[in-house]
Amino acid sequence: MPQTPHVERHFTGSESVRDVVIGMSDGLTVPFALAAGLSGAVSSGHIVVVAGLAEIAAGSIAMGLGGFLAARSDAEHYEQELARERKEVETIPEAEATEVAEIFESYGLSKEESRPVIDALRQKPGAWVNFMMRFELGLEEPLRGRALRSALTIAGAYAIGGFLPLFPYMLLTRMRSAFSLSVTLTLLALFMFGYVKGRFTGTAPLRGAVQTLVIGALAAAAAFFIARLIS
Amino acid sequence: MPQTPHVERHFTGSESVRDVVIGMSDGLTVPFALAAGLSGAVSSGHIVVVAGLAEIAAGSIAMGLGGFLAARSDAEHYEQELARERKEVETIPEAEATEVAEIFESYGLSKEESRPVIDALRQKPGAWVNFMMRFELGLEEPLRGRALRSALTIAGAYAIGGFLPLFPYMLLTRMRSAFSLSVTLTLLALFMFGYVKGRFTGTAPLRGAVQTLVIGALAAAAAFFIARLIS
Repeated sequence: MPQTPHVERHFTGSESVRDVVIGMSDGLTVPFALAAGLSGAVSSGHIVVVAGLAEIAAGSIAMGLGGFLAARSDAEHYEQELARERKEVETIPEAEATEVAEIFESYGLSKEESRPVIDALRQKPGAWVNFMMRFELGLEEPLRGRALRSALTIAGAYAIGGFLPLFPYMLLTRMRSAFSLSVTLTLLALFMFGYVKGRFTGTAPLRGAVQTLVIGALAAAAAFFIARLIS
Repeated sequence: MPQTPHVERHFTGSESVRDVVIGMSDGLTVPFALAAGLSGAVSSGHIVVVAGLAEIAAGSIAMGLGGFLAARSDAEHYEQELARERKEVETIPEAEATEVAEIFESYGLSKEESRPVIDALRQKPGAWVNFMMRFELGLEEPLRGRALRSALTIAGAYAIGGFLPLFPYMLLTRMRSAFSLSVTLTLLALFMFGYVKGRFTGTAPLRGAVQTLVIGALAAAAAFFIARLIS
């Protein structure tokens, strides 16, 4: 495979982490905001729970299946481009060699300076194809089995994140208490999640924590005021 | 910039299209599924509209702000890595030259074959840094202003997609009629959206149409049965 071990590690880690982050960011935010919003407009905690669970079902299916199809379509796109490059390297090697020279020219290298590399690649068609995939098209080979794992990771993270803000409405009968507990728990969870997310993705943890908290709070506030306005 | 015009075009187009696709896929799916789900559990179309609008507010803020911060964090990551590569090229050029040789080795090229390119890059530190960004780290320079445009595109697409399934509940007083019209309109819209999306993203249009329709229908059915089960 064309990737150096360094790059391979980089991408493996970030794709799984990114899936958890994608699922849990939205899972902690949208069902929470919907529950907070509805609790300003309806008098029954039961409706909040019904709407929240319906939202979790819809959201985790939409995001999980969406992630599945996106990952599968990335894999198909890679295969199509790979087949095209293979054919081009075989049938129009001169044009491909010119493309490689142009890539190096864009880094200020003359045709003479890049010629030894091009001549060497022409001796190794398999390596040449991999070189074109990465350096002409900027494509990484997708990991096998990624589509399904991605789907389950995103959907699971969404559902786990979404249950937390609903628990208080299941346990407590007084709407006001359920609302307060839900908001407190979820804002705390958003802060902690943002902190951990920051550590994984390279943002400063505290800044990640504050950003994630603010998104959740803004979404919930918007939902609350819109629901109250029209109810 | 290190990118060939070909690659530049490829990425510009796909990022804007991807933002619309991300926003509208979820916007057409989740508020629709929530509305369909709730209409199996509550007797008032008004509650469906309140919950739906609250969801649209929450979802578009969560996705838009999420997209904004993700794009900004990509841009910051690029700047950090750029600064690091600049420093490494300046302070430890031997180690960097060895890294370039190793990249070419992974394509089967000997040290002798890659030496002319490496020698030429060493004469041009600026181009060398750009070369490392793309070929060692696989990073593209993010487009300027992308974070804000991405946020607004995703949020707008989500809101537009989300309004459609709610309109029938605003216009029609009979729940059953509103439900039927909402389901019909939205499944039609999902089909058309999936078709267009397929054309833009390279999936076969009809397959894209069917996939998008199925995700929406599954999410709505799951929400419907969960809501009915616990209501």
